[in-house]
Amino acid sequence: MSKTVCAVSTAPMKAGVSVIRISGDDAENIIRRIFFKNNPDSLEPWGKIVPRSAHYGLIAVDGKIIDDVLMTFFPAPNSYTGEDTAEISCHGGVRVTAMVLDAVLWAGASPAEAGEFTRRSFINGKTSLTKAEGIAKLLDAKSEQAVYLSGKVARGRLSQEINSIADKLLTPVSSLYAAIDYPEEDMEEISDDELLAAIEECAEKISRLILTSKTGIAITEGIDTVIVGKPNAGKSTLFNTLAGEEKAIVTSVKGTTRDVLEYPVTLGRLLLNLKDTAGIRQASSDEIENIGISLSKKLISSISEGLILALFDLSEPWDESDELLLESLKDAQSTVIPVFCKTDLEKRLDTHGIEAALGKGVYICAAKAEGIDGLAKRIEELFIADDAALSEGRLLTSVRQRDQLRKALDCIEEAKTALTDGLKDACGALLEEALQSLYTLDGRGVSQRIVDDIFSRFCVGK
Amino acid sequence: MSKTVCAVSTAPMKAGVSVIRISGDDAENIIRRIFFKNNPDSLEPWGKIVPRSAHYGLIAVDGKIIDDVLMTFFPAPNSYTGEDTAEISCHGGVRVTAMVLDAVLWAGASPAEAGEFTRRSFINGKTSLTKAEGIAKLLDAKSEQAVYLSGKVARGRLSQEINSIADKLLTPVSSLYAAIDYPEEDMEEISDDELLAAIEECAEKISRLILTSKTGIAITEGIDTVIVGKPNAGKSTLFNTLAGEEKAIVTSVKGTTRDVLEYPVTLGRLLLNLKDTAGIRQASSDEIENIGISLSKKLISSISEGLILALFDLSEPWDESDELLLESLKDAQSTVIPVFCKTDLEKRLDTHGIEAALGKGVYICAAKAEGIDGLAKRIEELFIADDAALSEGRLLTSVRQRDQLRKALDCIEEAKTALTDGLKDACGALLEEALQSLYTLDGRGVSQRIVDDIFSRFCVGK
Repeated sequence: MSKTVCAVSTAPMKAGVSVIRISGDDAENIIRRIFFKNNPDSLEPWGKIVPRSAHYGLIAVDGKIIDDVLMTFFPAPNSYTGEDTAEISCHGGVRVTAMVLDAVLWAGASPAEAGEFTRRSFINGKTSLTKAEGIAKLLDAKSEQAVYLSGKVARGRLSQEINSIADKLLTPVSSLYAAIDYPEEDMEEISDDELLAAIEECAEKISRLILTSKTGIAITEGIDTVIVGKPNAGKSTLFNTLAGEEKAIVTSVKGTTRDVLEYPVTLGRLLLNLKDTAGIRQASSDEIENIGISLSKKLISSISEGLILALFDLSEPWDESDELLLESLKDAQSTVIPVFCKTDLEKRLDTHGIEAALGKGVYICAAKAEGIDGLAKRIEELFIADDAALSEGRLLTSVRQRDQLRKALDCIEEAKTALTDGLKDACGALLEEALQSLYTLDGRGVSQRIVDDIFSRFCVGK
Repeated sequence: MSKTVCAVSTAPMKAGVSVIRISGDDAENIIRRIFFKNNPDSLEPWGKIVPRSAHYGLIAVDGKIIDDVLMTFFPAPNSYTGEDTAEISCHGGVRVTAMVLDAVLWAGASPAEAGEFTRRSFINGKTSLTKAEGIAKLLDAKSEQAVYLSGKVARGRLSQEINSIADKLLTPVSSLYAAIDYPEEDMEEISDDELLAAIEECAEKISRLILTSKTGIAITEGIDTVIVGKPNAGKSTLFNTLAGEEKAIVTSVKGTTRDVLEYPVTLGRLLLNLKDTAGIRQASSDEIENIGISLSKKLISSISEGLILALFDLSEPWDESDELLLESLKDAQSTVIPVFCKTDLEKRLDTHGIEAALGKGVYICAAKAEGIDGLAKRIEELFIADDAALSEGRLLTSVRQRDQLRKALDCIEEAKTALTDGLKDACGALLEEALQSLYTLDGRGVSQRIVDDIFSRFCVGK
């Protein structure tokens, strides 16, 4: 029997209501020790507890009433954790909430660790690992798109997708194993061609899913974004146009040599984590524009899988600084968009070489806030590859998920080669490894399941 | 039909859970517009809503799912407000919570004003005014005693007490009125002596209740406390001993000529709002001790109904400064406790005159933290007059309550005189005014009730 845990599930500030959650085998006993009928003059133990029904009563310890509350009991397995769970909705004062929590601890519960309710939900098979990741991202979501997408992942859309691929892979795996382990049995045969087709289909589905991670991570976590360019290219103007004066919420990022401020900026459906490495925002115009190419180099190498807005001044002819910037961008581990500034001035820059190197540019006049929509559209084009996948929530939303799928894909590719070479044992082992990766992605063990599948589908043994 | 309102009832920070409350006639319709069965692949309207039962489903607008939530519906009148009420428990992310609230607003609810749910509860007769005051104090409560006492008031203990006095007063009122308005009816007679006895009993109960306000306010709001004394009397040492180094939470009090810091200090069952007017806490020892008698005078007049700890240095003979302090204390509107400091040094002060003027002193050696328990005990003696009333929650907890009761008492005293003078009409009118004050205290109208009472008890008319 696991210990029964409790925690305040609402934010620790004065409010109308606080919610205290209790989960574990002992939840009902704990409730019965501290929850009484709503008669302050004579405390009487609560009688029948109706599952999932809000009961209005009193929390008391040693005959002293602490608060009148709503208590709802969710018997296992139909609760968030899959365990017996009670939720106490008490008055939202800081002190009274602490005293109700103390009462629950007094009655025998232990303090829950961070994320423990969701962890228990996972252990009890109510939540998969990707669902749990979705819940965490939903709580952190800063944009509407992030809420929609994280919510879909939290409700299992990605788990479904992974399971459907795993199920497809199960057929060749169990067919190969059954043929190897029980050669004397008379079982359905799958031809090598059929096997190869099934394996290739899985590989293709996984490849497609891997490609979605750029969009998924961009939407749920935001895109790390830096603005680079030679002095006077217009960095501070673009920065301030994007960040705005009022709406910017500044968060300090630790562990960098100098303070990096991050401004989360919603642009279209995407969230940019705009990095103000050089203090672009606060510095005076002169200071900013002295921040030149050497800083740009540092910025370019400081992010990976992010977005680099490379600014070029349309009103100035091509010079050595532009040349150096273009050179630095070759090492970029992020998506680069060339941004041509100052469309309001006479054009002196030849953009052909830049566009040949970096792709089609976006033209803006940040001072007049012109061209920002075009920039937003280009960012969306580059980061939202698959609109259907997005609207259905079939997107990877973390690096962990992508790494795990890449492992699976590697195994499948090797398995294909093994099959072509006639090495069926090796093929089976590699496919099982791929399957293991898929299951691990969602946090489930695999061996027993393969065994179960073989026995159920092939009726081996008598 | 009043408009249906909604608000987030939990604190506006990231947490596991947020609660959104909807109250009003349209609550069920609003829920039905945005709450769907838990099938993300095909949204279906929720079917039967079981009262007070937690329903797990989806919040969606325009076919877009925002969150999976628990929804509990409380049909009128068995809800907090007395109206149809729905509570949505959604994921506690800031953005997702805002989007669920937006969905409720989209579906037709209006944003609730501060305290509107409790106000509606009051309007609908679910909560009396004193109960509402108790709820407000419960949310603000900073000590255990404050939670216990405010909770009792919130659950109606004070309302009960006031009602019982009002009921007692109703008998003479309706008897007088019935005799005046329906002289021909053959009704129970109440003799003048019985009338007088009933009136005096009520007056005595009200007087006793008025006396409890000192304790009630001290416990729920804390006692404004200043430390005064001549230079080197030991003010800073006592201050730091009481406030402690770690536990002091500093709150700035606006509107004073200089910054006054307030340190809430729990001492025994009471909360002291220790005022650091002169910067006693931060100032160096020398600076502090130069703060002398002129500041003490200001401090003494700065608080009313609070606590003045008047420090005298036992190790120094009586001098002009002590004399001046004693003089200043004559104008105090607060409780004064003479505190004799430095019990560890040779005694040179004659304490008789001081104790004759200010009452029995408390002896401490703050540097060694000796005598603090004795000080706490003395403060409790002075502020907790009626332990039984405290443990039963029969205490006034606000100045408003006390003022209203004083009005009632004045009327009753006048009514007594009128009755003695044989002016029964005047007596009746004055008692009705007293009754009105009592009912106003709990926020109820009175006239209809007196009428109801007359008709029900005296069977007037045919």
